[in-house]
Amino acid sequence: MTTPLEYVRAHRDAHLEELKELLRIPSISAQPDHKGDVRAAAEWMLAALATAGMENGRLIETDGGNPLVYADWLHSGDDKPTVLIYGHYDVQPPEPLDLWESPPFEPTTRDDGYLYARGSSDDKGQVFIHVKAVEAYMKTDGRLPLNIKFIVEGEEEVGGGSLAAFIKSNASEQIKADVVLVSDTAMLTPTQPAIVYGLRGMSYMLIDVTGPARDLHSGGYGGAIDNPLNVLSHIIAQLKDMDGVVQIPGFYDNVRNLSEDERVMLGKRPFDEAAVLDDTGAPQLWGEPAFTPAERIGARPTLDVHGIIGGYTGEGAKTVLPSTVHAKISMRLVPDQSPEEINKKFIDFVQSITPPTVTVNVRAEHGAAASITDWTVPAMQAASAAYVKTFGNEPILVRMGGSIPVVGQFQSEMGMESVLMGFGLPTDHIHSPNERFYVDNFYLGIETAVHFLQLY
Amino acid sequence: MTTPLEYVRAHRDAHLEELKELLRIPSISAQPDHKGDVRAAAEWMLAALATAGMENGRLIETDGGNPLVYADWLHSGDDKPTVLIYGHYDVQPPEPLDLWESPPFEPTTRDDGYLYARGSSDDKGQVFIHVKAVEAYMKTDGRLPLNIKFIVEGEEEVGGGSLAAFIKSNASEQIKADVVLVSDTAMLTPTQPAIVYGLRGMSYMLIDVTGPARDLHSGGYGGAIDNPLNVLSHIIAQLKDMDGVVQIPGFYDNVRNLSEDERVMLGKRPFDEAAVLDDTGAPQLWGEPAFTPAERIGARPTLDVHGIIGGYTGEGAKTVLPSTVHAKISMRLVPDQSPEEINKKFIDFVQSITPPTVTVNVRAEHGAAASITDWTVPAMQAASAAYVKTFGNEPILVRMGGSIPVVGQFQSEMGMESVLMGFGLPTDHIHSPNERFYVDNFYLGIETAVHFLQLY
Repeated sequence: MTTPLEYVRAHRDAHLEELKELLRIPSISAQPDHKGDVRAAAEWMLAALATAGMENGRLIETDGGNPLVYADWLHSGDDKPTVLIYGHYDVQPPEPLDLWESPPFEPTTRDDGYLYARGSSDDKGQVFIHVKAVEAYMKTDGRLPLNIKFIVEGEEEVGGGSLAAFIKSNASEQIKADVVLVSDTAMLTPTQPAIVYGLRGMSYMLIDVTGPARDLHSGGYGGAIDNPLNVLSHIIAQLKDMDGVVQIPGFYDNVRNLSEDERVMLGKRPFDEAAVLDDTGAPQLWGEPAFTPAERIGARPTLDVHGIIGGYTGEGAKTVLPSTVHAKISMRLVPDQSPEEINKKFIDFVQSITPPTVTVNVRAEHGAAASITDWTVPAMQAASAAYVKTFGNEPILVRMGGSIPVVGQFQSEMGMESVLMGFGLPTDHIHSPNERFYVDNFYLGIETAVHFLQLY
Repeated sequence: MTTPLEYVRAHRDAHLEELKELLRIPSISAQPDHKGDVRAAAEWMLAALATAGMENGRLIETDGGNPLVYADWLHSGDDKPTVLIYGHYDVQPPEPLDLWESPPFEPTTRDDGYLYARGSSDDKGQVFIHVKAVEAYMKTDGRLPLNIKFIVEGEEEVGGGSLAAFIKSNASEQIKADVVLVSDTAMLTPTQPAIVYGLRGMSYMLIDVTGPARDLHSGGYGGAIDNPLNVLSHIIAQLKDMDGVVQIPGFYDNVRNLSEDERVMLGKRPFDEAAVLDDTGAPQLWGEPAFTPAERIGARPTLDVHGIIGGYTGEGAKTVLPSTVHAKISMRLVPDQSPEEINKKFIDFVQSITPPTVTVNVRAEHGAAASITDWTVPAMQAASAAYVKTFGNEPILVRMGGSIPVVGQFQSEMGMESVLMGFGLPTDHIHSPNERFYVDNFYLGIETAVHFLQLY
């Protein structure tokens, strides 16, 4: 009789081809003209769960948003735990397109052992690991060793509003579980697993600065009417100093200090500065002088400008004082900063430093609280053991710089801890051109998930 | 027998229709895909000069640039002065197109008495005034009261490189004259003429700031790798303080101080703050506290950002640390700052304040020296008297904030003073959407030019 492990090893090629089908769907949630593709990805995921043997599959429609994909298998009895597997089927915009070496929605495996496509690592490839792990049990044992629910959303890259509303509603009872299992993070190297126990939150802000009602000729008015691009630069320069210390009054008030124990634990994470510089092409590392790079990324809040556009940006020279200019800025938050508190401090500060020569419109685009998971719960121990069986190495516990807002919502609204069992790599270029997923770890990820279901 | 004045009054409608033909040609010199339109405008101008009775008309080809249009009439003898009439047939880009109330290249007269089109005031409408003035003499008297040369260029809006090279070459002998007559400036009100005796120069700079070699996810790297948009904002904020005082070391070293006499003369210019605010929509005036608005615009150097683009500027939220970001910045110069000196100080300063966490590429796009014309020369007196005959008011002498680089080049390379006899208005929206030209002053401009040719 075939075991689940034998099953997944025998079906590696088929599983990779199935993943490529999903990656061909450009389910870009930030771009309204891809609404139909986003829905197609949801329907694809629903069908894949049915093929895997999951039951009660359905799309949960949301209020104007993208559907949630639900399915379950709940026949192991009340004495067995119930695991909610969470993932997302939407992806980041692929722009700038000209920097992709192969098209973002034509999945391509290369000799380097990676599969290249938008969404390959974030998160289609990772959530699909769990679909194949449950399928392995159902196609061999005909049953699972515990109870499973899946919830796969389509708005993770645009703030996750629909799932957040669902979690707050009474309907959330149907996804209640003992623990949430999330694969949307990275290992440290191809052979060194990591379990993320801390995630940063986010305040995403939009600023518009308006001076004159129309673009003016800088010869006729320059020096006597203020320029919104100069003002915007002054505003941004006052938000964070050149060492990376945010200057918004009260910004650090609610930052939980790192204990010495936690700093020691975080210090166990190897940080290969040369490799990071080589991979990113950045001239050097940088950041708050009092903290290590790992702490700056995982345990400290920060502020980054993601986009500025204003004035004449076409070819050649044009001499305008622009009318209205725009910036997108986010702050990554850590416990116990709340997005509501930080939004207000940001808005108040920007308004206080805006001169009367322009008007400013500043508003929050979306936000998410930071979260920390208790790293002593049984599911964490099971995850750790599952990694050891597959990769031979104990996972290192890390705080991650990114945001997975739903983890905080599961914790605060439903009392569910999440286990962040990631199979990506820091060099996967998520949110960038040439996103990729290491194919060996797609296969080993399925094996690790098979072990986890047995060990928990 | 018809006089030149009677001729122009009898042909007003025809002259306006002819101008509209020229305005329909989108001769945008900054945009390479309009190269053919730029040439079409040159050929149109050449034909119009022939119709007006000018001789020796030809396109002077330039080295990869746009042709210079030349024509003359030199039969008044050596005892009569020779006037070189200068103008340009190229126009600014029309973007942003959605703000135009009628299409930029479909000239439209409205009930407010203005003709709306890109180039209507800057400079097609103004240079065409002189074509019609000489035509009035040729079609009535059959001769001009003095000798005339025309030189009309097609690169004024992109730095004027070809004409500058021509002026420096031996070939410039063919455009030698006693004085240059330029109509590319504005009156103060529809009835108050102005003669510009000072023009600002320009250093136009491009800055690229590069951090990582590709866009990075701000969750994975934010706080530990520096962000080129934050750095660019810091650089720009350090160039000029919020009062408008440029912070580049040595920037003001060669600024010629205003004499008390000149400040008094400049003070005669009425400055209607409420009208400026109403027209521009700016919340309030602004600028160096020690100088009046007229001085800030005409007699003080300044620095303005004309465009910034970087990161994600599309719909929705994206959380990138961008790789390379761009800014276009110009400084308006006054005597005796030179563009070469200021370019070097700008580049040195930007490099000195750029942190080692990014690389910066900073370079001059083009430059022009400021200029001051001697306001006691006979041509100036003739221009003044011509305005009085037509508008009933003495022109006010002003320093203008814009740059007409060729005026400085005529002065320094060929020893020719320029008379800047403008017929535009400050509210013509040049370089902006809805550029326009006051039709009555198009007609009166032709009459003023007719008087000038007689009086000089």
